[in-house]
Amino acid sequence: MTASREEFEARLRQIGADRYHDKHPFHHMLHGGECTPAQVRAWVINRFYYQASIPMKDAAFMSRVEDPALRREWRSRIEDHDGHGENEGGIERWLRLADAVGLDRSYVASKQGVLPATKFAVDAYVRFVREKPLLEAVAASLTELFAPKIHADRIKGLLANYDFANDRSMSYFQRRLNEAPKDVAFGLKYVLDNADTQEKQDACAAALEFKTDVLWSQLDALYSAYVAPGRIPPGGWQPGTYELDLRATA
Amino acid sequence: MTASREEFEARLRQIGADRYHDKHPFHHMLHGGECTPAQVRAWVINRFYYQASIPMKDAAFMSRVEDPALRREWRSRIEDHDGHGENEGGIERWLRLADAVGLDRSYVASKQGVLPATKFAVDAYVRFVREKPLLEAVAASLTELFAPKIHADRIKGLLANYDFANDRSMSYFQRRLNEAPKDVAFGLKYVLDNADTQEKQDACAAALEFKTDVLWSQLDALYSAYVAPGRIPPGGWQPGTYELDLRATA
Repeated sequence: MTASREEFEARLRQIGADRYHDKHPFHHMLHGGECTPAQVRAWVINRFYYQASIPMKDAAFMSRVEDPALRREWRSRIEDHDGHGENEGGIERWLRLADAVGLDRSYVASKQGVLPATKFAVDAYVRFVREKPLLEAVAASLTELFAPKIHADRIKGLLANYDFANDRSMSYFQRRLNEAPKDVAFGLKYVLDNADTQEKQDACAAALEFKTDVLWSQLDALYSAYVAPGRIPPGGWQPGTYELDLRATA
Repeated sequence: MTASREEFEARLRQIGADRYHDKHPFHHMLHGGECTPAQVRAWVINRFYYQASIPMKDAAFMSRVEDPALRREWRSRIEDHDGHGENEGGIERWLRLADAVGLDRSYVASKQGVLPATKFAVDAYVRFVREKPLLEAVAASLTELFAPKIHADRIKGLLANYDFANDRSMSYFQRRLNEAPKDVAFGLKYVLDNADTQEKQDACAAALEFKTDVLWSQLDALYSAYVAPGRIPPGGWQPGTYELDLRATA
């Protein structure tokens, strides 16, 4: 029997409560000021790979949408990341964060040194969106339901704990606080409107779980490489390289 | 300037010396008898996902080969894994190992409980072979150059250290000792014959590095989940579930 709209929304939200990466210890370290400068930098380097892939993911989605209205609605996501008019875009704002934490931004932009596990996880997400039914691709984006809290926590935690954190370097997260709710309101309505059978609801829940795996795996990889056991895999960024002076980090 | 055939082969072999997963501490634990039964089981569960994906990878390769002779040559790899005639195939032999270590083989075969990071890495390999030039797909398979030593070490180490290890449960590895050299001799000759420019040699080296990343990431994920810090990600196999009696493990 198909769950009601309310029951289905509650099911989706429960996935976030159970599996979203705000429960990962790396986030607690980051927000609590327990990350070393090298660990913060490793996070910035690896998370950049995710940021830079998101517009490709959204373009892959749009490439399969036949409805111009849906494409127009979705296009704003690409603009948010790549920039549009006076908005320099989320990728540029992320590189500003890279500057602030004392990294060579051209190194970060080159995506060298990104952990293989980060690439595998993020690329899996891009492929998912390219290959799966549109409804499931939208459902996978609904981790944004859980993002405002993590962004707010992050701004607060980083500002309190790290010298590099200021309005300028935190602008990526500040901006997402405004952008994400608009996107997710659209995505949630789309999923609730279109998942009109049990089978589709199950597929949407699985897609959202998949996306939480994508996020969680990235933090597991960071933790493994740079916290414990602290074994950086072949090719991963080595602390002490591509760093500028340390003025900016606590 | 294009490297000579000998120089190029040496370059490929050096990638194994630097990056093959026989250098990963999980392998040392496994071969040295330091893995707990749960850690051995986690390895069997996750490595099954890799085994089960290899014939799909090989079929994706064959789907893009126009030369019937090359397809025929390659087809034996699928037969090695899926079985053919009196040969029950590598996947069945792996499930025999699952039996021996005290796991419910239908659970292993279901691929439930496989770590997301394992799936991301393995799926990346299948996709690589589906999408990249054939030459690079063959080059990625050349980790088999380094496999006979790891299989021999594994047979010896497991037999010495675990009660579950015997000729029957080790048959997967014993068999690969015979199969892999034939495959890799063909693959190596193909790559050396066809990588006739510096650009192609570089692409082949990158493909082989990519494949070492795929293997290494799987062990990093196992280590992170089941050794240190021992944090099993959401959805990962929980020790104590889907186990049969413990008679078989040391």
